[in-house]
Amino acid sequence: MLVVMETTATPDMVAQVCREIEKMGLKARPMEGASRTTIEVTGDRFPVDPDGILTQSGVEDVIHLTQPYKLVSRKFHPDDSVVGVNGVKIGGLELVVMAGPCAVESREQCMTIAEQVAKAGAKVFRGGAFKPRTSPYSFQGLGEEGLKILAEVREKYKLMIVTEAMDTEAMDLVADYADIIQIGSRNMQNFSLLRKAGRKKNPVLLKRGMSATVEEFLMAAEYVMAEGNHNVILCERGVRTFADHTRNTLDLSVVPAVKQISHLPMIVDSSHGTGKRYQVLPMSRAAVAAGADGLLVEVHHDPVGALSDGVQSITPDMFVRLMGEIRAIAGVLGRSCA
Amino acid sequence: MLVVMETTATPDMVAQVCREIEKMGLKARPMEGASRTTIEVTGDRFPVDPDGILTQSGVEDVIHLTQPYKLVSRKFHPDDSVVGVNGVKIGGLELVVMAGPCAVESREQCMTIAEQVAKAGAKVFRGGAFKPRTSPYSFQGLGEEGLKILAEVREKYKLMIVTEAMDTEAMDLVADYADIIQIGSRNMQNFSLLRKAGRKKNPVLLKRGMSATVEEFLMAAEYVMAEGNHNVILCERGVRTFADHTRNTLDLSVVPAVKQISHLPMIVDSSHGTGKRYQVLPMSRAAVAAGADGLLVEVHHDPVGALSDGVQSITPDMFVRLMGEIRAIAGVLGRSCA
Amino acid sequence: MLVVMETTATPDMVAQVCREIEKMGLKARPMEGASRTTIEVTGDRFPVDPDGILTQSGVEDVIHLTQPYKLVSRKFHPDDSVVGVNGVKIGGLELVVMAGPCAVESREQCMTIAEQVAKAGAKVFRGGAFKPRTSPYSFQGLGEEGLKILAEVREKYKLMIVTEAMDTEAMDLVADYADIIQIGSRNMQNFSLLRKAGRKKNPVLLKRGMSATVEEFLMAAEYVMAEGNHNVILCERGVRTFADHTRNTLDLSVVPAVKQISHLPMIVDSSHGTGKRYQVLPMSRAAVAAGADGLLVEVHHDPVGALSDGVQSITPDMFVRLMGEIRAIAGVLGRSCA
Amino acid sequence: MLVVMETTATPDMVAQVCREIEKMGLKARPMEGASRTTIEVTGDRFPVDPDGILTQSGVEDVIHLTQPYKLVSRKFHPDDSVVGVNGVKIGGLELVVMAGPCAVESREQCMTIAEQVAKAGAKVFRGGAFKPRTSPYSFQGLGEEGLKILAEVREKYKLMIVTEAMDTEAMDLVADYADIIQIGSRNMQNFSLLRKAGRKKNPVLLKRGMSATVEEFLMAAEYVMAEGNHNVILCERGVRTFADHTRNTLDLSVVPAVKQISHLPMIVDSSHGTGKRYQVLPMSRAAVAAGADGLLVEVHHDPVGALSDGVQSITPDMFVRLMGEIRAIAGVLGRSCA
Repeated sequence: MLVVMETTATPDMVAQVCREIEKMGLKARPMEGASRTTIEVTGDRFPVDPDGILTQSGVEDVIHLTQPYKLVSRKFHPDDSVVGVNGVKIGGLELVVMAGPCAVESREQCMTIAEQVAKAGAKVFRGGAFKPRTSPYSFQGLGEEGLKILAEVREKYKLMIVTEAMDTEAMDLVADYADIIQIGSRNMQNFSLLRKAGRKKNPVLLKRGMSATVEEFLMAAEYVMAEGNHNVILCERGVRTFADHTRNTLDLSVVPAVKQISHLPMIVDSSHGTGKRYQVLPMSRAAVAAGADGLLVEVHHDPVGALSDGVQSITPDMFVRLMGEIRAIAGVLGRSCA
Repeated sequence: MLVVMETTATPDMVAQVCREIEKMGLKARPMEGASRTTIEVTGDRFPVDPDGILTQSGVEDVIHLTQPYKLVSRKFHPDDSVVGVNGVKIGGLELVVMAGPCAVESREQCMTIAEQVAKAGAKVFRGGAFKPRTSPYSFQGLGEEGLKILAEVREKYKLMIVTEAMDTEAMDLVADYADIIQIGSRNMQNFSLLRKAGRKKNPVLLKRGMSATVEEFLMAAEYVMAEGNHNVILCERGVRTFADHTRNTLDLSVVPAVKQISHLPMIVDSSHGTGKRYQVLPMSRAAVAAGADGLLVEVHHDPVGALSDGVQSITPDMFVRLMGEIRAIAGVLGRSCA
Repeated sequence: MLVVMETTATPDMVAQVCREIEKMGLKARPMEGASRTTIEVTGDRFPVDPDGILTQSGVEDVIHLTQPYKLVSRKFHPDDSVVGVNGVKIGGLELVVMAGPCAVESREQCMTIAEQVAKAGAKVFRGGAFKPRTSPYSFQGLGEEGLKILAEVREKYKLMIVTEAMDTEAMDLVADYADIIQIGSRNMQNFSLLRKAGRKKNPVLLKRGMSATVEEFLMAAEYVMAEGNHNVILCERGVRTFADHTRNTLDLSVVPAVKQISHLPMIVDSSHGTGKRYQVLPMSRAAVAAGADGLLVEVHHDPVGALSDGVQSITPDMFVRLMGEIRAIAGVLGRSCA
Repeated sequence: MLVVMETTATPDMVAQVCREIEKMGLKARPMEGASRTTIEVTGDRFPVDPDGILTQSGVEDVIHLTQPYKLVSRKFHPDDSVVGVNGVKIGGLELVVMAGPCAVESREQCMTIAEQVAKAGAKVFRGGAFKPRTSPYSFQGLGEEGLKILAEVREKYKLMIVTEAMDTEAMDLVADYADIIQIGSRNMQNFSLLRKAGRKKNPVLLKRGMSATVEEFLMAAEYVMAEGNHNVILCERGVRTFADHTRNTLDLSVVPAVKQISHLPMIVDSSHGTGKRYQVLPMSRAAVAAGADGLLVEVHHDPVGALSDGVQSITPDMFVRLMGEIRAIAGVLGRSCA
């Protein structure tokens, strides 16, 4: 950390700031320049809250030189992490596609969709048993009944299951039935939920919040990892901007940005990320081309009758085409896809 | 609801859409125009999920004419709601100011600040015992110990207490010690937490999410009210935009917008809403001028030593000045302030 | 400016960076810390483009300590600037209200509105003769004919005239007829237009761009002033965000922010800034309470028949009420309003 | 267009609205529903400004069913447009890559870069002779001298030239020297400049504004086309959001969105769109995968010494790699690239 003093700061002010820094257990070393003094602070392995210093007299600015990241950071783990779940490996050279309906609606619906996505190459089945809905009057999911259906899907089609845990109460249930626990974008900074997920053994699929910066996103993963669960998969799902041609603005640049800072695997939800069926294929291709380790895609055999998010679900036929396209693009990047 | 058919839609398509609508228990009435058919849907007291219809052949658009709001809406409750808590009334002609430190740091800190804000006219004391922090390594609050300090403040200075409940576990504790339960912006769509707050007797202070639309904000209040707790106070605290001169962009237009749709009282957090000490006074005045029913303000007797958010806390002296200014502006609007 | 070297930077790298800095005619002074070297750069009265340095080996970051502002800055002109135009003074203790229709539609329309706004206390008449419209097929304004009508308004009602110049060609014409030249938000970074306005004698009303930061906004004013015209009035008119309850998000915090950095007067356009008639009064009050030096308000005697922006225009009756309210709020702040 | 009346609207109100619509030369047909009347408006080939109607008594909403687009629309031109310029075809199966430095700095600089990008497969050379800079004190480009250098590049390397015209004055000059006239994002709604470009013969490269919706972007193209110049190439270059890990947020979903509505070719500027060198390759691949017809890329042989935007320029070596990667991805999509 550097503390930049104002050009008018007196030696007393500099001394006072140094004392404050040392009170925090850090080392302060004033460096005199031609026009002002800059204080180098060392011993701060993680960023210090700058408020206490910024409010001192004579301080112009506090510059963080230490990144806030620890367990998520490539500095602590230079190689890519690969999250394994019963033989499926996320974050390696092989892309992993997670597909299924937005919500679990019935056993039959899930079986029909699961059969087709499994055949086309999906390795993980998605489907919400607990649905976060803007309105308390909308369909909220089948709950444990939905989880049981998902467990049957796993049994029959050998697909791993990912499904959302919306609260600490439901997390135990979800952890029992599902392979991967999803934390939704509305809960990205539900720190109690993150901590609880950190105490589970299941891998955690963490979705980026609707207006989360990369730093906030990675620090949310840090919450999970700090509790001991290092199996975190990050997921971009679109952010909120002024743009109205898509439901959210899919920010693919976050893939290379995260990969530069972190070793964690990162996938892209091209369904929620765009909210429009016709966008899913081109943006899935783009996600893979940008370096994503996999996709999360909504597939429904009867989008017209879907209980939620039908307008963004693709059909099984479109999914087959999607798999073909991303397989080819994966090849260009020296990767593969089932 | 109106379903607008494409100009090329066939009578069969219209009939099919009508059948789908009627399957939902609604009434469909096709109206033939010169260029296209429009179907009027009635019986939908609350908005129907349009996905199932939008995905039908021949449908161009679905237009909602019913608002999604029920309990929050002025249509169901034309007069302003006044939320009372032990004699303090929020939402009436008298403005209510809630003031105190960002975080409860010690008994002494709270007593010092409480004495001064009480004398200046604050009616409610704020202070976080559980702090939502971006980093798991930052100060997370004193927990129950902090709640006990807050209870002492109430005892001694006759101030009502508002403090945040970050999860369903802590909510029982918070409800026991505090008068008003705060739900923070990161939890605005933590639906389990909203539901739990709806089953408490305490009034709930609900902060707008960082990128929440007015509809999402009001629907979050609807979650609380749908469980039976109608004592909801809304709070604008700034939204996330590209602008970098403030920490968040304080969107004061949300005050008249919410007042038009809803009967609920609405206050403004001018501290988090701007993140800069020099902004707190002008933006507090502006909030009152725009029609807010009160303010939430961070006050610290020693902002330099504050454990969190010192740069946005005002001093007790500034708070006295703030109270004088908003009292005068309240007078212009035919309102008052202690 | 400070150049922060990486902890792994070699003395050779430091020396090379110093040479590069000196090639730019600046002075470099390396300061050795415990963990890294920081180079203080002096002689840079204005910010140096950091790209050339950031791309050098061993450089971690470049920290600007010099603000990019010169003529707009309070450092160069500590007192508030007051822009005078034929006896009307903008930026002093007296608030100035500019009112009139969105577009000049006819002589009769302007006369009717002008009479009423003048009587209510407006000092400047607004009305577009050249209208920037999203569609080439929308009404584009009456052009010079409109300017002539505005000149008649000035003659008859002793109101100063403000109207937009959309291009360098029209600016000569606008400068001849109008008192104040408006530069619209879409043209805030039309640098040729800014330069041309800087060579005129008329005061310039510069609107903030739809996604302009404070720095970009003030630098646009710097373009005008750098050409010799120091009579610049800044105007907030709402920025583009995800929020959909207003047409734009009126960012009132920009008023205190600009006032802190700059001596220029600043007004607020509460009509375009909200786009909704019911928002104009509360947000005008809020603007004045936040410290604005005046308002720009759309008034139309027949909003129903208006050729543009009728939904955000207030009626003359509402304008009378608005003037009464802001006069009272101005009084609270020790200011006045005609 | 549909005019939705309030449920409480009287027959008189409906009749009055119909009269207003007919005064505009349109046909109004009231359709009575069970709960309200909806008026179908026909004869509006282009969207009517809804303000005049929205402000009538009894009107709840006005629903546009006609798109505002005419010449840009696929409805008027179902096939993809291919813009040709001296043998280079933009918008066909072959991707076109435009590459070169941000700014023309010297003859030698341009020749060095041009040689390498030409060899690697670029067909168009980019380089700014007139630079739009936030500060009036930054390097503003070499002007006509820069245009002459660009003309030499064309001569020597058979590359087409694209360069920006910042104002109507410079456009004649640019049109004389360059093949393609670029209109920058800050000028996307400089309607006078768009009109002037519409009267030139050169193809126009139109960049999306920093906060432009798809509708505003396409309507800007409509301005150019309405003057007779149908050779418009659209370019996504990133939009402004809260995200701070890139300079702008590259919104690739705009590619499929524009392609659905319009027949115009569309390319992506992955350099300005990200502002970071390490993002250029992955986001260029993603742009091609999403369906872009080409790229605009900044290449500099000495990014360290570049006078502007060095941090986002890639080296000639990286450009060779980029061309290889996008050639392979183009192949996956059944396209090619030189």
